[in-house]
Amino acid sequence: MSIKLYCFGESGHSYKVALALTLSGTEWEAIHVDFFNGETRSPEFRNNVNEMGECPVLVDGDVKLTQSGVILDYLSEKTGKFGGSTPEEKREILRWVLWDNHKLSGPGGMTRFLMNFIPEEKRPREVIAFTKARLKSAFKVLDDHLADRDFLVGDSITNADFSCCCYLFFEEPSAFVRADWPNISAWLDRIAAQPGWQHPYDLMTPAFPPRS
Amino acid sequence: MSIKLYCFGESGHSYKVALALTLSGTEWEAIHVDFFNGETRSPEFRNNVNEMGECPVLVDGDVKLTQSGVILDYLSEKTGKFGGSTPEEKREILRWVLWDNHKLSGPGGMTRFLMNFIPEEKRPREVIAFTKARLKSAFKVLDDHLADRDFLVGDSITNADFSCCCYLFFEEPSAFVRADWPNISAWLDRIAAQPGWQHPYDLMTPAFPPRS
Repeated sequence: MSIKLYCFGESGHSYKVALALTLSGTEWEAIHVDFFNGETRSPEFRNNVNEMGECPVLVDGDVKLTQSGVILDYLSEKTGKFGGSTPEEKREILRWVLWDNHKLSGPGGMTRFLMNFIPEEKRPREVIAFTKARLKSAFKVLDDHLADRDFLVGDSITNADFSCCCYLFFEEPSAFVRADWPNISAWLDRIAAQPGWQHPYDLMTPAFPPRS
Repeated sequence: MSIKLYCFGESGHSYKVALALTLSGTEWEAIHVDFFNGETRSPEFRNNVNEMGECPVLVDGDVKLTQSGVILDYLSEKTGKFGGSTPEEKREILRWVLWDNHKLSGPGGMTRFLMNFIPEEKRPREVIAFTKARLKSAFKVLDDHLADRDFLVGDSITNADFSCCCYLFFEEPSAFVRADWPNISAWLDRIAAQPGWQHPYDLMTPAFPPRS
């Protein structure tokens, strides 16, 4: 029985896991979640899948896990890949995963949602401007860290990279303007050059027609 | 040489660690950071203490760690306390720590800052209203989870509790209204009843005179 991932194409948090599964050569199948019609917030989803009302959720036989950072850690234990090789590297990976949740993908995913997936007249302009400014500070931390490194931790790709890159491959309007951040851009190219890499919309079904 | 913690009284993220250190009976000393005058965002702090420009930072001899979730995990390895006893418990603790960073303390700390620590005329009303509404959803997840449990994971206090409670003991105006969330309120009482528990402003020096 292969691993199942509750996910949807527009979800960067799901993409972290979909990418780790794919690059590790693990068999998996996507269970599409109808996020934009409220599936994750329904009582059924909260009671049976995830009380936190979020994607991704991974099911591996009897094991059901939520929170992408937990799932990435579990997969590294299972596959021996992407989790770092020393206690120091493992801590450094967790550090970037936590920072990402708090400062990068957390507000980044929300801002992308507000800028793209609600009707234009309902978009809260002040909120979008505020979070865009905060995200700029996060992009600067990431860009500075990548000035003299190929990947965020150690010499090869890890869960830290999967976590932090997850919303940066989408082409829709967002706070991230790739041309402004040369070190991040070069790092995204290195991630996309990994054997087997695929765009989020090729790994998971999007709800909306992708814009190019 | 005792453990040093870069922190300040108003920082809930620092309080997570200060509380874990105190309740584990570990000797530690606070190094006060002048956050409100920009110390964490200064080039000196970024270059010498934390490139992410954040508190807390823990220094234990040659080990320097940032991100409260990483520090809590490190302290559990060192003291054998609060980290869970099975792989399942450890994953469940990490799950709540990540959720907290993304949905609870991350936006909660920011909203508290906007509501209290900038001049009233500069407070972004639309942003505050927006994040307050989102935080209500997070409080509901926490309150529901605590309906039939004393602590978030297992039968006793863990890093999951330290992480999620960290901004909820402050008395200043915030998105959190304790009377609205009976299960959270009872859980905060259980945390405050732990031997040695102290309020954030008693463990760390605040920059502003506390309001009561």
